[in-house]
Amino acid sequence: MSSSPLLSQLIDALRVLPGVGNKTAQRMAFHLLEREREGAQRLAARLVEACARIGNCSRCRTFSEDAVCALCASSARDDSLLCVVESPVDQIAIEQATGFRGRYFVMLGRLSPLDGLGPDELGLDVLARRLGEGLVRELIVATNPSVEGEATAHYLGQIAHQHGVRASRLAHGMPLGGELEFIDRGTLAHAFGGRLEIT
Amino acid sequence: MSSSPLLSQLIDALRVLPGVGNKTAQRMAFHLLEREREGAQRLAARLVEACARIGNCSRCRTFSEDAVCALCASSARDDSLLCVVESPVDQIAIEQATGFRGRYFVMLGRLSPLDGLGPDELGLDVLARRLGEGLVRELIVATNPSVEGEATAHYLGQIAHQHGVRASRLAHGMPLGGELEFIDRGTLAHAFGGRLEIT
Repeated sequence: MSSSPLLSQLIDALRVLPGVGNKTAQRMAFHLLEREREGAQRLAARLVEACARIGNCSRCRTFSEDAVCALCASSARDDSLLCVVESPVDQIAIEQATGFRGRYFVMLGRLSPLDGLGPDELGLDVLARRLGEGLVRELIVATNPSVEGEATAHYLGQIAHQHGVRASRLAHGMPLGGELEFIDRGTLAHAFGGRLEIT
Repeated sequence: MSSSPLLSQLIDALRVLPGVGNKTAQRMAFHLLEREREGAQRLAARLVEACARIGNCSRCRTFSEDAVCALCASSARDDSLLCVVESPVDQIAIEQATGFRGRYFVMLGRLSPLDGLGPDELGLDVLARRLGEGLVRELIVATNPSVEGEATAHYLGQIAHQHGVRASRLAHGMPLGGELEFIDRGTLAHAFGGRLEIT
């Protein structure tokens, strides 16, 4: 298809990126070769280094090049609040949007038996041991509002209660700036049912 | 922002890809670390190899690891037809969609004085010398239908005429499968003005 076998191989290799099909991979390869050879080489070096040195934090399972990540190692966080998220991006979103000062636990996935993701794959045994240590007072479940996320939230709630820990779940309702007319039925029903008194 | 400096560096490095902002770069980095470490290492190797070994074909300027690309070196192509395109992706599109069996010339850009792209940067001196060789009978100008593409097409037409070579331009008109109602005014005016008799 392309005039150069090396170029075809590069295009193939770029398709490993999520959401990148053949057309986008072509465009990326040509862009790098035309204008960003230095950036491409830097990217290659970073990829090699990241793959070789980034593992998982032994406390919260997030990606970290140290045995314990900076957030888990920090003494400035509140040990009594533990927020469970599906992925490191969710952790970043919560850090940026909220004033949460507790700890995190990153499952790197959600319960999904069809994909072979059970409690063990998500490290929920590690989480249970941590709740057993007795420091955590509240488990904040911040899974995605999908069917699998809801099922995972329910399961996490049970683990928390087994250890006598309070479990909470992010509120559902109207998104700020959304228009009532265009909000899906499930969300609207949740928002209506959970209406708050104006004081 | 992220728990790991190496991860932040990887996310930064991924932003060298066209159309990839911070969010997408994050998603890519996590995807690679979670599920595609092997693919990431293969990508790194391909990037290094491509940057080191891919140069430009001395005949048509397209990307090639050899001094002359496979298409220019092929004896099965028609030397009397030369198709000028802006980028290697355009060449691939023409190869896939049409039965064109001539040669190509890849400008790697279009005339754009504001970006510092003049005739020399696009190798139009090389193109003129090639037309001077006397083998080419028709120069097919396949620049994009943008303002800069049209200006480049006009300029290429002049070069062709200086060398007594016929110049042609891809037809404008209604795209197949398009709906008249939704076609932009310029295209519709072109298609209307260039209407063909039904025979």
